[in-house]
Amino acid sequence: MKIKKAVITAAARGERLYPVADTIQKAMLPVIDIDGLHKPAIQIIAEEAFAAGIEEICIVCAPGDGDRYLSAFTLLRDNLIKSYQGIDWARQEAEKVDHLLSSLRFAEQSKPLGYGHAVYCAKAFVGDEPFLLLLGDYLYVSYLQGRRCATQLVELAMQEACAVSAVNPTIEHQITRYGTLTGKQLPQVKGVYQIEKIIEKPSLSIAELELQTPGLRAGYYLCFFGMHVLTPTVFALLEKQVLAGGNDIMLTPALQELAASEKYLALEVKGNRYDLSRRKGLLRAQLALGLAGEAHAETLATMVELLAEANGRTSHSNA
Amino acid sequence: MKIKKAVITAAARGERLYPVADTIQKAMLPVIDIDGLHKPAIQIIAEEAFAAGIEEICIVCAPGDGDRYLSAFTLLRDNLIKSYQGIDWARQEAEKVDHLLSSLRFAEQSKPLGYGHAVYCAKAFVGDEPFLLLLGDYLYVSYLQGRRCATQLVELAMQEACAVSAVNPTIEHQITRYGTLTGKQLPQVKGVYQIEKIIEKPSLSIAELELQTPGLRAGYYLCFFGMHVLTPTVFALLEKQVLAGGNDIMLTPALQELAASEKYLALEVKGNRYDLSRRKGLLRAQLALGLAGEAHAETLATMVELLAEANGRTSHSNA
Repeated sequence: MKIKKAVITAAARGERLYPVADTIQKAMLPVIDIDGLHKPAIQIIAEEAFAAGIEEICIVCAPGDGDRYLSAFTLLRDNLIKSYQGIDWARQEAEKVDHLLSSLRFAEQSKPLGYGHAVYCAKAFVGDEPFLLLLGDYLYVSYLQGRRCATQLVELAMQEACAVSAVNPTIEHQITRYGTLTGKQLPQVKGVYQIEKIIEKPSLSIAELELQTPGLRAGYYLCFFGMHVLTPTVFALLEKQVLAGGNDIMLTPALQELAASEKYLALEVKGNRYDLSRRKGLLRAQLALGLAGEAHAETLATMVELLAEANGRTSHSNA
Repeated sequence: MKIKKAVITAAARGERLYPVADTIQKAMLPVIDIDGLHKPAIQIIAEEAFAAGIEEICIVCAPGDGDRYLSAFTLLRDNLIKSYQGIDWARQEAEKVDHLLSSLRFAEQSKPLGYGHAVYCAKAFVGDEPFLLLLGDYLYVSYLQGRRCATQLVELAMQEACAVSAVNPTIEHQITRYGTLTGKQLPQVKGVYQIEKIIEKPSLSIAELELQTPGLRAGYYLCFFGMHVLTPTVFALLEKQVLAGGNDIMLTPALQELAASEKYLALEVKGNRYDLSRRKGLLRAQLALGLAGEAHAETLATMVELLAEANGRTSHSNA
C-alpha cells in the first residue's frame, strides 16, 4: 500500500473560539516553521505531508478560495526570487513553493455542512486510493528527530496496509471536545490499537462506561489528533449521510462504521499539535514551532528579551 | 489646537524583510491586545488613536483594499454579535468595532511611490487641520500606566500647538534603518527637543559628525518612532516632491523643511514599538502586547508551558 495523496480541509469549521480568525484567510497566517523560516501555515502542513511521501495535495476550501491560494503562493514565490536574488535559502524556499504550487489541487465545499461533508468533497480527487487526511489549522511538532507526525502515521499504514488514525492520550476534562475512542492494544507494537469504538465528543460518564483503554494513565482517554490515513471506503460511508441530508455531517460515525467493516488502527503519535483556531492558538504555534527546530536559540532569546522588557516596564511604572 | 484626525499608512512599504507578509493583508493579522483580546493589528492601532482623542481615521491603502477592510470588520462585528450572544466582553467589543467602522475613511494609493507619497494621498482627508500619523504595521506598548504612546504625543502637540514627532534613543548600529535627528533639548521639559536636523537612514560617520545630541547615552541617537503629529504644511512640502516626479517620495526631506519653517518638536515617548513587517515581528508583537496588559499572567503561563514542552521533547528524543 502506497499513500501518495493528501486531503487538507481548510473550509470554515463550525466551532468558533476565536472570532477574529474568521476575517482573514487563516491558512495563510505566517508561522515560524521548524526550519526557522516564516511560512503560511498551510505550507507548513503541506510540507508535513510531502515529508511523509505525499505527491499530490487537495485543499478542500470555500468557493473562490482556490484562486486566492494560488495567487498568494505565486506572489510569495515571485517575491522570494525577485527580492532575495542570489541568497541560498530564498532560492531553495522558492523551489519549495514552486513544488507546492505544482502539487496543489482544490475541491470547493459549496456549503458548510460539517467536517464529514468537507472530507466527502475530496472524493473525486482521492479516487480509489488510500489518502492522508489533515486539518488546515492544525500544526504539528514531532518528538522524534527527523520523523514528523505524518511520517509516523503513514509508515504504520503502509506496513499494516490499513486505515490508521493518529491519537493521543488526553486528560478526561478535555475529551468532550474531541472524537474519543478505545480499542485493543496490539501485542507486538506499543502505542498501536485495533479500534473498537469511537464516540464524538463523549460526556465524561459515557466515556467512563464505554471508552476506557487499559494501559493508559488513570483519567486519560485516546482522542483523535486531527490526522488520519483512510481508505476510500470512507467515502461510501459518508455518502449515506450526505444522501440522507442534514447540516452537520460528521466524520466520526463514518469512522465508527469503518472500524466495523475493515482493519482500522489507532497510533499514539509521538508529538504535539497546535490548533490555530483556538484562543492564543497563533501565539502557541509560533512559540512551539520556533522552540522545536533550528530557530530554538533565537526564539528563546526573543522570549527572554521580551520578558526582560516587560519586567523593566513594571519597574518603570512603579518608579 | 485640537487633533481630531489620524492617518494610518497601510499600503505596501518598500523594504521587505519578510516575504510571507506580502501574501496576506498584514494589517488584519490577529494580535493579542493589551486588554487580552485578539484583534486585527489595525484595530489595535486605531484604538491607540481613539485613546488619544482622535475621531476620524483615514487608512491609506492599495486600490480595492478599503472594501476589504470594511467587509472584514463588518464580518468581525457580526460574528461577535451572533456567536457570543449575551456575553459582556463580546457586546462591548462589537460596539468598539462598530465605532471603528463608522470612523473609518480610505484614501487609495494608486502606485507605490514611497512613504511620503502615501502620506500625501491623505491630503484631501486631512484638509486644514493638524493630524496624527501612524504606520499600519507598528504596534506600541507604553511604559506609562493609562497613557498610551499616541496620547503622550498628542498631549504635547496640543499643549505646544505645533508639530511633534515621537523619537526614541537608538543604539548607533541600528540608526542606518531609520530617520535620525538632532535638536536642542527644551529647558523646561525632559525628553523634548526643538528639531534642528533630520537625515533619513544616515551612515554612522555622517551621524557622528552631524546628529549627536548632548544628554543622550554615548553611542545613542534620536530616531523616529513611526508616530507624528503634523500640521497641514507638510502637504505643501510633499507636493513639491510629488510634482517633481520620482518613484520614491520620502517623508523625511519634507519634515526637514518643516523644521526650518515652523516650530517642530521631538518627544522621547515612554514606550516601545513592534514592527510586524520584520522577521519574527508578529511573534514579538504577540508576546510584547500579551505581557504588557491584562493577559500578562496568561501569556507568561503559555510561555512557561511551551518551554517545558520543548524541554520535555529534548529529553524524550535523547531517551
